Amino acid sequence: MTLVPEIEKARDVFEHLRQHSADPPGVTRMSYGDGENFAHRTISEWAKDLTLEIRHDYAGNQYVTLPGQDRSAPKVIMGSHMDSVRHGGNFDGAAGVVCAMSALHRLHRLNRKPQRDLTVMAIRAEEIVWFPCHYAGSRMAFGLLEPREFDEIRRSDTGRSIAEHIDELGFDSTALKAGKVFLKHEEIRCYIEVHIEQGPVLLNAGLPLGVVTGIRGNLRYRNCHVDGAYSHAGGIPREFRRDALFGFVAFARYVESYCLDLEKRGEDIVFTVGEAYTDAANHAITKVPGRVDFTMDIRSIDNQTLLKLDEDLRAEADRISAERNVTIDLGPVANAKPAIMDEGIRTGLHRQLQKLAIPTMDIGSGGGHDCAVFAGQGVKSAMLFIRNDGGSHNPEEAMDMADFEKATDVLSEFLTEEFCTRDG
Amino acid sequence: MTLVPEIEKARDVFEHLRQHSADPPGVTRMSYGDGENFAHRTISEWAKDLTLEIRHDYAGNQYVTLPGQDRSAPKVIMGSHMDSVRHGGNFDGAAGVVCAMSALHRLHRLNRKPQRDLTVMAIRAEEIVWFPCHYAGSRMAFGLLEPREFDEIRRSDTGRSIAEHIDELGFDSTALKAGKVFLKHEEIRCYIEVHIEQGPVLLNAGLPLGVVTGIRGNLRYRNCHVDGAYSHAGGIPREFRRDALFGFVAFARYVESYCLDLEKRGEDIVFTVGEAYTDAANHAITKVPGRVDFTMDIRSIDNQTLLKLDEDLRAEADRISAERNVTIDLGPVANAKPAIMDEGIRTGLHRQLQKLAIPTMDIGSGGGHDCAVFAGQGVKSAMLFIRNDGGSHNPEEAMDMADFEKATDVLSEFLTEEFCTRDG
Repeated sequence: MTLVPEIEKARDVFEHLRQHSADPPGVTRMSYGDGENFAHRTISEWAKDLTLEIRHDYAGNQYVTLPGQDRSAPKVIMGSHMDSVRHGGNFDGAAGVVCAMSALHRLHRLNRKPQRDLTVMAIRAEEIVWFPCHYAGSRMAFGLLEPREFDEIRRSDTGRSIAEHIDELGFDSTALKAGKVFLKHEEIRCYIEVHIEQGPVLLNAGLPLGVVTGIRGNLRYRNCHVDGAYSHAGGIPREFRRDALFGFVAFARYVESYCLDLEKRGEDIVFTVGEAYTDAANHAITKVPGRVDFTMDIRSIDNQTLLKLDEDLRAEADRISAERNVTIDLGPVANAKPAIMDEGIRTGLHRQLQKLAIPTMDIGSGGGHDCAVFAGQGVKSAMLFIRNDGGSHNPEEAMDMADFEKATDVLSEFLTEEFCTRDG
Repeated sequence: MTLVPEIEKARDVFEHLRQHSADPPGVTRMSYGDGENFAHRTISEWAKDLTLEIRHDYAGNQYVTLPGQDRSAPKVIMGSHMDSVRHGGNFDGAAGVVCAMSALHRLHRLNRKPQRDLTVMAIRAEEIVWFPCHYAGSRMAFGLLEPREFDEIRRSDTGRSIAEHIDELGFDSTALKAGKVFLKHEEIRCYIEVHIEQGPVLLNAGLPLGVVTGIRGNLRYRNCHVDGAYSHAGGIPREFRRDALFGFVAFARYVESYCLDLEKRGEDIVFTVGEAYTDAANHAITKVPGRVDFTMDIRSIDNQTLLKLDEDLRAEADRISAERNVTIDLGPVANAKPAIMDEGIRTGLHRQLQKLAIPTMDIGSGGGHDCAVFAGQGVKSAMLFIRNDGGSHNPEEAMDMADFEKATDVLSEFLTEEFCTRDG
């Protein structure tokens, strides 16, 4: 199969990345580690070949720019991250950067002239497994980390602070701690992130691409527990029991039926009880359990839905506690607000999809992405999902290059129509 | 307070036992260990003071007999065990032996003449925490252990076989392995066991004593599990999930509602999910869980109810598995059959309770007891429960000596009316 040059280049870059970050099964590209550094250098080399501008911010995020006619006009940023989880897949993160590079490559090849700067941003440290901090790279670009965090946040494998890792690579944690900001929202026209879908929705719908409507917000409950009383499984009749397990079951059942009701009413909701366990030090087959610990992660595109749900779950926890003579304590909840994608850019992407006759759909993003940081800063933001088999964060990730090419087509046509003078 | 001699003696024996097996908090009397041996010696000394006959079987169970006029007539056995769990209470087991001794003591004091042998049996090794074998002591008396088991069954703390422990005390594991049987059901007129109630039913009903209707049988499922698939808590919509946790919740909810229905229809049932847990090595707050392990212990006085329930639970497990695209596997089940208490003896006990104006009730036994072994051998069997606060198998066990005295009254009057010639 003959490919257009930028898609052939993209294919080679993916293969190059895979080989140099191989850690069977899969690839490992630690934040600020060898794999991520190699990926950043690979992007730099590509940019040099195309004689594009290359800059880095204090945190080591890389910006590759096809300069616009008006260098002072707010720029278009297309970004994603280059790190991966351990034994992860080759595409989660990298596909977005490579796709944006392919689009610039095509514009360059076709000699299209942007009116404003078009910038690919290769973002650092997105995968939370390495530093226990959401979106560290893009948040540092906006100056959103507290000074103390640079010494407090440590990489899970090395135990060294993010400041040490930044400085080791020649970047500048001192500037960051002093509050220096590289990205300002008023200097950004919009942000677009291409990413593989982390679920099977596009695959099951038989569609290569999806236009993201929003990134779900979430409620995270890390420390829920039910307290009852341990007692004899034979000697104690039900009415005298304080059974933590069946208290948990009644509550979990309520969470499920509540969320299914929302789903039926057409609201966006997913809910996960990822951990739930009786106490291994005290439980036994012949003992009524006196304690169950559990977690909840509940996501929706509508934060009002989440806030109402939190209130309703707490009321129901109290009701079940009273009814069953146990104590269901949901503990503190962390609420990450949803990020709504920009209507104008979404319409623009749909227009290109239609022109190119690429079947598509609107899709919510369940997982979090750097795009949420940009949207949170008031930047008009959007995401394009590429169909993906095998889920993400694992070696089975499987993106088809034909789908990737379609994403490149959409992105480059969108940039051309919205931001270029056609004089090439 | 002035007590009749045998109750004063009983009180002293309890205090003596408590002091010599103290292991704060509570007492520890290991099977074939110092605490149990001391308890057996204490009973021997009491028997010697009363000039009663003392025998031991091959396994070290002790038999104290007030001889009857017809020594060859089937004898009445009143027994319970003398061991305790670690840091247990002073009364679980011991109260039954001490109560039977008090009854013989009273008959002896009042010079009542039994027509047949009245025997107190101090049983070995009932608490399963020491040897992983139900009712080892009473089953050895009937020759119900397999020869190989004597070397296979090892004490949880010493790691030594039950044969070694038996021989160490001068008893005879060789005879047991050779199939020698000490107790034969046809030589036993009936078996009566007094025991503290292990639950709070009598306490809550304000009644000192209860006549046991039967010892519940049980279904024990040690290795139930739900298999689904781990996936991303955000990226995967509900319809594509194979959520092991909510599969478990749906099943547990069914178990509860099924058993509550039985309860409403007046059937005897208790159900416990003692252990339930997602896999600590793989679970996370942001992952749909792919596996849940759990146990079930379900008890009823009616084995038909249990067998039907097992069938219905398995069918529902299959239905939920199909509906939710998970696999609920209940694994093997062990079925211990219920032991029905003898109608004639129960009536006899009620008659004495009525005569003595002691308020009482019929009560099911949730926990297992040596009595189940006798009933299983076709011996007419019965149990009398004494009110107890604080549950059993823990230092908070609290039996009132006034209730204990009532049990002694009932037992000695029953023995007198049923089995003695009143010529004293």
